[in-house]
Amino acid sequence: MCDFGQCLQCNNLDCFDERMDKMHEECGIFGVYSLDDKELDVAGMTYYGLYSLQHRGQESAGIAVSDSETIVYHKDMGLVPEIFDKVVLNHLKGTMAVGHVRYSTTGASRHENAQPIVVRSRNGQIALAHNGNIVNAAELREEMEQCGTIFQTTNDTEVLINLITKHSISTNILEEAVQKMMLDVNGSYGLILMTANKMLGVRDPYGIRPLCIGKTSTSYVIASESCALDAVNAEFIRDIEPGEIVVIENNEIRSIKSFNKKDTRLCIFEFVYFARPDSIIDGASVQQSRYEAGKRLAIEHPVEADIVIGVPDSGLSAALGYSRQSGIPYGEGIVKNRYVGRTFIQPSQGMREMAVRIKHNAIKQTIQGKRVVIIDDSIVRGTTTRRIVQILKKAGAKEVHMRVSSPPLKYPCYFGIDISSRKELVANKLSIDEIREMICADTLGYLSLEGLLETPIGAKCGFCAACLTGDYPIDVPEEGDKFSCGC
Amino acid sequence: MCDFGQCLQCNNLDCFDERMDKMHEECGIFGVYSLDDKELDVAGMTYYGLYSLQHRGQESAGIAVSDSETIVYHKDMGLVPEIFDKVVLNHLKGTMAVGHVRYSTTGASRHENAQPIVVRSRNGQIALAHNGNIVNAAELREEMEQCGTIFQTTNDTEVLINLITKHSISTNILEEAVQKMMLDVNGSYGLILMTANKMLGVRDPYGIRPLCIGKTSTSYVIASESCALDAVNAEFIRDIEPGEIVVIENNEIRSIKSFNKKDTRLCIFEFVYFARPDSIIDGASVQQSRYEAGKRLAIEHPVEADIVIGVPDSGLSAALGYSRQSGIPYGEGIVKNRYVGRTFIQPSQGMREMAVRIKHNAIKQTIQGKRVVIIDDSIVRGTTTRRIVQILKKAGAKEVHMRVSSPPLKYPCYFGIDISSRKELVANKLSIDEIREMICADTLGYLSLEGLLETPIGAKCGFCAACLTGDYPIDVPEEGDKFSCGC
Amino acid sequence: MCDFGQCLQCNNLDCFDERMDKMHEECGIFGVYSLDDKELDVAGMTYYGLYSLQHRGQESAGIAVSDSETIVYHKDMGLVPEIFDKVVLNHLKGTMAVGHVRYSTTGASRHENAQPIVVRSRNGQIALAHNGNIVNAAELREEMEQCGTIFQTTNDTEVLINLITKHSISTNILEEAVQKMMLDVNGSYGLILMTANKMLGVRDPYGIRPLCIGKTSTSYVIASESCALDAVNAEFIRDIEPGEIVVIENNEIRSIKSFNKKDTRLCIFEFVYFARPDSIIDGASVQQSRYEAGKRLAIEHPVEADIVIGVPDSGLSAALGYSRQSGIPYGEGIVKNRYVGRTFIQPSQGMREMAVRIKHNAIKQTIQGKRVVIIDDSIVRGTTTRRIVQILKKAGAKEVHMRVSSPPLKYPCYFGIDISSRKELVANKLSIDEIREMICADTLGYLSLEGLLETPIGAKCGFCAACLTGDYPIDVPEEGDKFSCGC
Amino acid sequence: MCDFGQCLQCNNLDCFDERMDKMHEECGIFGVYSLDDKELDVAGMTYYGLYSLQHRGQESAGIAVSDSETIVYHKDMGLVPEIFDKVVLNHLKGTMAVGHVRYSTTGASRHENAQPIVVRSRNGQIALAHNGNIVNAAELREEMEQCGTIFQTTNDTEVLINLITKHSISTNILEEAVQKMMLDVNGSYGLILMTANKMLGVRDPYGIRPLCIGKTSTSYVIASESCALDAVNAEFIRDIEPGEIVVIENNEIRSIKSFNKKDTRLCIFEFVYFARPDSIIDGASVQQSRYEAGKRLAIEHPVEADIVIGVPDSGLSAALGYSRQSGIPYGEGIVKNRYVGRTFIQPSQGMREMAVRIKHNAIKQTIQGKRVVIIDDSIVRGTTTRRIVQILKKAGAKEVHMRVSSPPLKYPCYFGIDISSRKELVANKLSIDEIREMICADTLGYLSLEGLLETPIGAKCGFCAACLTGDYPIDVPEEGDKFSCGC
Repeated sequence: MCDFGQCLQCNNLDCFDERMDKMHEECGIFGVYSLDDKELDVAGMTYYGLYSLQHRGQESAGIAVSDSETIVYHKDMGLVPEIFDKVVLNHLKGTMAVGHVRYSTTGASRHENAQPIVVRSRNGQIALAHNGNIVNAAELREEMEQCGTIFQTTNDTEVLINLITKHSISTNILEEAVQKMMLDVNGSYGLILMTANKMLGVRDPYGIRPLCIGKTSTSYVIASESCALDAVNAEFIRDIEPGEIVVIENNEIRSIKSFNKKDTRLCIFEFVYFARPDSIIDGASVQQSRYEAGKRLAIEHPVEADIVIGVPDSGLSAALGYSRQSGIPYGEGIVKNRYVGRTFIQPSQGMREMAVRIKHNAIKQTIQGKRVVIIDDSIVRGTTTRRIVQILKKAGAKEVHMRVSSPPLKYPCYFGIDISSRKELVANKLSIDEIREMICADTLGYLSLEGLLETPIGAKCGFCAACLTGDYPIDVPEEGDKFSCGC
Repeated sequence: MCDFGQCLQCNNLDCFDERMDKMHEECGIFGVYSLDDKELDVAGMTYYGLYSLQHRGQESAGIAVSDSETIVYHKDMGLVPEIFDKVVLNHLKGTMAVGHVRYSTTGASRHENAQPIVVRSRNGQIALAHNGNIVNAAELREEMEQCGTIFQTTNDTEVLINLITKHSISTNILEEAVQKMMLDVNGSYGLILMTANKMLGVRDPYGIRPLCIGKTSTSYVIASESCALDAVNAEFIRDIEPGEIVVIENNEIRSIKSFNKKDTRLCIFEFVYFARPDSIIDGASVQQSRYEAGKRLAIEHPVEADIVIGVPDSGLSAALGYSRQSGIPYGEGIVKNRYVGRTFIQPSQGMREMAVRIKHNAIKQTIQGKRVVIIDDSIVRGTTTRRIVQILKKAGAKEVHMRVSSPPLKYPCYFGIDISSRKELVANKLSIDEIREMICADTLGYLSLEGLLETPIGAKCGFCAACLTGDYPIDVPEEGDKFSCGC
Repeated sequence: MCDFGQCLQCNNLDCFDERMDKMHEECGIFGVYSLDDKELDVAGMTYYGLYSLQHRGQESAGIAVSDSETIVYHKDMGLVPEIFDKVVLNHLKGTMAVGHVRYSTTGASRHENAQPIVVRSRNGQIALAHNGNIVNAAELREEMEQCGTIFQTTNDTEVLINLITKHSISTNILEEAVQKMMLDVNGSYGLILMTANKMLGVRDPYGIRPLCIGKTSTSYVIASESCALDAVNAEFIRDIEPGEIVVIENNEIRSIKSFNKKDTRLCIFEFVYFARPDSIIDGASVQQSRYEAGKRLAIEHPVEADIVIGVPDSGLSAALGYSRQSGIPYGEGIVKNRYVGRTFIQPSQGMREMAVRIKHNAIKQTIQGKRVVIIDDSIVRGTTTRRIVQILKKAGAKEVHMRVSSPPLKYPCYFGIDISSRKELVANKLSIDEIREMICADTLGYLSLEGLLETPIGAKCGFCAACLTGDYPIDVPEEGDKFSCGC
Repeated sequence: MCDFGQCLQCNNLDCFDERMDKMHEECGIFGVYSLDDKELDVAGMTYYGLYSLQHRGQESAGIAVSDSETIVYHKDMGLVPEIFDKVVLNHLKGTMAVGHVRYSTTGASRHENAQPIVVRSRNGQIALAHNGNIVNAAELREEMEQCGTIFQTTNDTEVLINLITKHSISTNILEEAVQKMMLDVNGSYGLILMTANKMLGVRDPYGIRPLCIGKTSTSYVIASESCALDAVNAEFIRDIEPGEIVVIENNEIRSIKSFNKKDTRLCIFEFVYFARPDSIIDGASVQQSRYEAGKRLAIEHPVEADIVIGVPDSGLSAALGYSRQSGIPYGEGIVKNRYVGRTFIQPSQGMREMAVRIKHNAIKQTIQGKRVVIIDDSIVRGTTTRRIVQILKKAGAKEVHMRVSSPPLKYPCYFGIDISSRKELVANKLSIDEIREMICADTLGYLSLEGLLETPIGAKCGFCAACLTGDYPIDVPEEGDKFSCGC
């Protein structure tokens, strides 16, 4: 358990909340290809696109641009607007750009792990941005090491680029090399590749991570989520299909679909937690899916109560759905401090009680004397949930009924979500009633798996729910194996 | 008008939004007095208190502590968690502390304007933190200059501390000197004064700025808003009364009320916009007041529509109230990018269209084909509102009915709100129908003044609504006078 | 004694060397007045002037400019080129400028102590830059506090500006107020005052700190040392006389000399150590003075030896003089690491031996098997000297004859040099022979006081040598009194 | 020519001086191997070692340590003491360390070029630090690219590590792979390699860059220059021989010498300019060599004069030698501003005249009315030299006789010195008399090549003087070829 005083990595409370009690997906990617518009500010567009994908990663960001001869790039630790200013963007001139935002990893060499990775190879310069996780990266790396390849990072992306380059020896066509790479690797990936004069968007055969394409009058755009298309005023064309390679070259876009469409497996937590509510993924609205989850929760776990509230921000839609379905009024019961950021001082021994309220506070007028239904999207370790119940009770709630808009999290994710082992997951150790007791709630109800899978209304895909079921679409390492969660 | 490319002060879009389209109050203050608890981490408590008041000022912050002999302090530009780390807090040992967060002012000497101001005087060392604005500061400064006083800042706070020190010549009792100062100055102020061994909380005779006191088992606490008491787990005692001086000394608290309770005038915009929703000010809940405003708007300006949505964050409560009153369903229609911070690159000429969406985006599923009621708390210049209507229409709204949970802003504020002249206020130049046209809404309805003044349910005070009426409680400079808006 | 592991202030070895083993003067000042040349870049000139005075203070720097109506300024912690860039300098437009570099003081509020201090007063805006130390500042401050004045810094400069402003009540002529201030204060000072439209250069009646004036075709320049005149290509006019006020106004320069020229007392250590060798002060060349000191040392303390070397940089001139006089060849025997700067990690226990060489190393080829005469300008605590002898012996010196180009330091300085008490001075505790033993030298010889006072060849002034004799020109606090060494 | 106002790379005057008028070698390397002393602070020792090699590179620095299982590292842009503090060094625990300081290169991806480079390969983790330049790096890179290798930097070091790893496929013994790599590459290199449990020191077959080994009671040390051995109190053992591989493993040191000792070619400019005067390289003292150069100059180019002075710092030793040989007195005539660092503002149009003196100033007393011999180590572009002559003339020198302690620079260096083309070299365009005229000197004399090659008294090696003769020991690119000068 992450004790405030002892855990070195948790030098802030926010970490306690975010890293330990919430899962995190690890990256957002964005690419733009200018259609003969020499004036188009592709770096600027990528800046806006990454800004709107910032929720997918706050540790580092980078942008690479090609002027059709040379690729130059800039990447650094920090938020998008901290890394890029006018001077930097003005140096990133070109007709194509690819960008990346990355969630935090630990370790000393974090700067080296920033993306896009830009290399020189027999294909010339290549920039690669990757969202996801390669399950057999260690084996692939070792194999290639035996053949004399060196690795400068612990990043899966370096494995991918090396594979692509190796395969380029037997074929001079980049997309064929990428296809061969896709046969080698197991795992989740959304990729954007850029050479001096073409751009590829690639999605893994199971479609575990999202990726979509859009269009403006003068460019094609590829992005992790549709909200980034909106951000640059691009029109949504379609999601890239699982296993598909989209190639943009000579101002034309074409598609290579060499993988039989298996049962596709989009990560269900994109809808539960990761994606922005204004995004639409594989046909389903994220916000609507959360709202629907709330409605289903109300059916599966009804309760007599006076008010329904959500934990901001991701619990609000579900709370609204629960309210609509149950007829119990929706209210604002919890305030989130918008300024709690990445740095935060550990509370001294005597002040932990205070630190509880730094991130969330209750609105007494809404809560006092009420039987409260409170909705959150998930429970990871249980500590934040316990704290929120505590805040509500202190504010005078007569009863607190916790409803969770996803089933219990029991299994680690090997496809890009930062839950490194089962041990952290409270639902892996305790029964639902024990969890209820631990979090001091009067009742506790989780949405059923069946219910959850129905929430992405209109989705044209299947889902990966392995963290809930243990049923992984791909062979994964034995429990207890060392597991390096790259991005 | 603030043209993106030309306004020097607006080197970010956020500025465009926040500085120009929203009003800003300027400061938050916090004090803690330890009751014989030598171990109490008063600087740490102040850190948490300021953290929860960060919405009242993001430019600079400072903490001064007294160990009953000496006052030491640390202040700098930036957010609370950026300025204070463990090393700094560990150097701030004492039994009393006073802290301050400050909203941005322009000018070169910004560091000099950070608070608390700490001086040596005939009263020994004094630390002073001030929230508000002194209307006759320039006259007072000039008068004192003629008597040989020098001023090192353009800060009203320096005027106050000089006045108190001058009056201390004729009386050795600090609180008497403060009373005399209160006779000299016209304006709004919440003050916390700290000498080596006593602490004073002072509120101006009209009670324009809020200030309240609380208690833990081992300390007294003074804060701008009750949410800061919650943040340090303190129990709310009461608001400091308009014109009251609260003295905490020798572990006892006492009160000096030498001003006849006039018609008090709490700034109504604390309820509309400034204060945090979980705060309770002069007896009224901020969140409830906003919710009530929405209900009254629904009565005053009904419309046939399919959905009610709010502009996050401050419009959400009113939207909920409008929905409840009107029966039109409440929905989530607008997403706010949580990472849009203080730095932001100006969009190049060709990218303004994109920049529009960096802060807000619409959720299409909620909006498409609907007649939408959208609620915001106020309209200052009109540009942000126009942009939001535009986003909704692009997302497919059939009709957009703008409702504003306060009356038209027509007059500048002289009591601490950063609206420097009438010229920026769209309601000062255009009729309501012209504004409707400018923002491209189908209908536009403002809450009436009478309605607004009823919203702070349970409030035990009168209100200043001069920015809406021009009826200032205190003589103010002629329009066009130079006006230095200190804090 | 400053133990590496314990002294908080000494978080670097450099501190060990520079703060403890060397004395430091505390400030450099520079002013420029444009003669009707609107295009003259007065801030840029001040930048160059301060750059050349950087050796007089590295903690903070500031520049204030007047455009004949308003004074604006910029100051910060750091070196001149770190604080000022093109953007900042471009904002400092005007026809007069005054700048300041400041040596390190301790304490939390260091930013507040940066100069020039700029205030609003009955004289309008005034900027003041000060080099020196006011002995009776505490008394003056207390007196003024009793009259209702507040002090925001612990800076003597704030005392001076308050005094001038108080005296301005009885006279409207600034220079008269300054004259009255000069009657109040005891201490050392070079001052540059700037109002919106005039500039004053002031030197204390004893002339303890240097100050000179120069001229270009379009401006007058005032500076602490003549090397700053060279830096801006100005022609040296003359030193400002002790007790003189130079007034530059309406493009004319005039002088007020109301103090009888007493026996003047220029600080002798300006020649020994502080000033740049290329400066000429009160008629004497600094470099020549040091060379002369070496010649006299050779006469007073001859020795049979094979080579004469100096401790870089300030011991080199004297070594050359010793060599010339004695006929013993001059050589380069010690290298100084040019990159040892302001930050330096304390060596861990096992590595002190290594840390010895980080700043200085011996050149074996020069030293090995030789009888070495090594010259340094002074010995403060003795530790650096001991270290240098050790390095020479390790490099194979057969004998090490230490010669010091000034007499033993026995008394604290109250006029601006940072030696806070007698206790640190090795010559105050030990006899010369004991010092010789402590530093492990074979012989040790100090220059006599009489000898030293003859070294500034051509000087038109007397000297303060109180740190050598205890004979202070002004009443100073009793030994043991608290002594705040401002600047 | 580098015009102040136009050259983007020259955003500082210092650049003007240092980059354009002086050549720069590019790196310093340092390694330490602990002999069973678990407590030895190998990172701390490397810190001190790099500090003393800082003159060889100021752009970036890095340290990698091995605890015999894992290699961790930290590297960043900046000076050694800026990059490493106690916290960082405490994280670098191990029994071996290798460090690197790097001189500035231009371009966006500078962080990526910092060393040591640390990779995972079939040899396990390897850290590599490199000083020098590989002439055929582009060919080697291209060849390997064709075989599927990718390159993430433009650094020669990445080429070397890839070659070593490739060769490791056919042999499992690292030192054999290194030998094979040495057969592939043409160029200059001093290398330190570190795996988890062994360390290698490698010097190129011509010995172009220096590298030496030393010993303390508990460790072996490898360093670019002997001054770094002194810095950690290590005893000099010997120089690593050209073509030699030194292996330190299992607490033992052994040597592999598979290259026939050809005519060795140590870079003569190590003696002229790059190395620290207290270093001894291949048997010759750097300081003594410079002194000798001065003596020979006096014989080759005698002149009647009154004083001999040197341009600080590297011209001082030669000036002393000239003085000794000629009998003309040695004096201090030029002061160098110690605070002119890496940032410096370009002088505005009207202020270039002033900027001349920011770095150097003359001491008038020494110069006035004298016939001056001034010695500098080399002339690159001539601009700094012209400026110094100008300063001397302005200070009253009757005649200025420039003597240069090396022959005219006419050819670019391909072995690690940053002179990218002939065009910058004044001696390539002008005759000696034209140069004399350009720099406004009365006479000008360069040391002859024969003379120079005699100066490293006692040297046990031959020299590369290709920049003076065009006689490169290795085939180099045609003039005009693109030439990327890595390190």
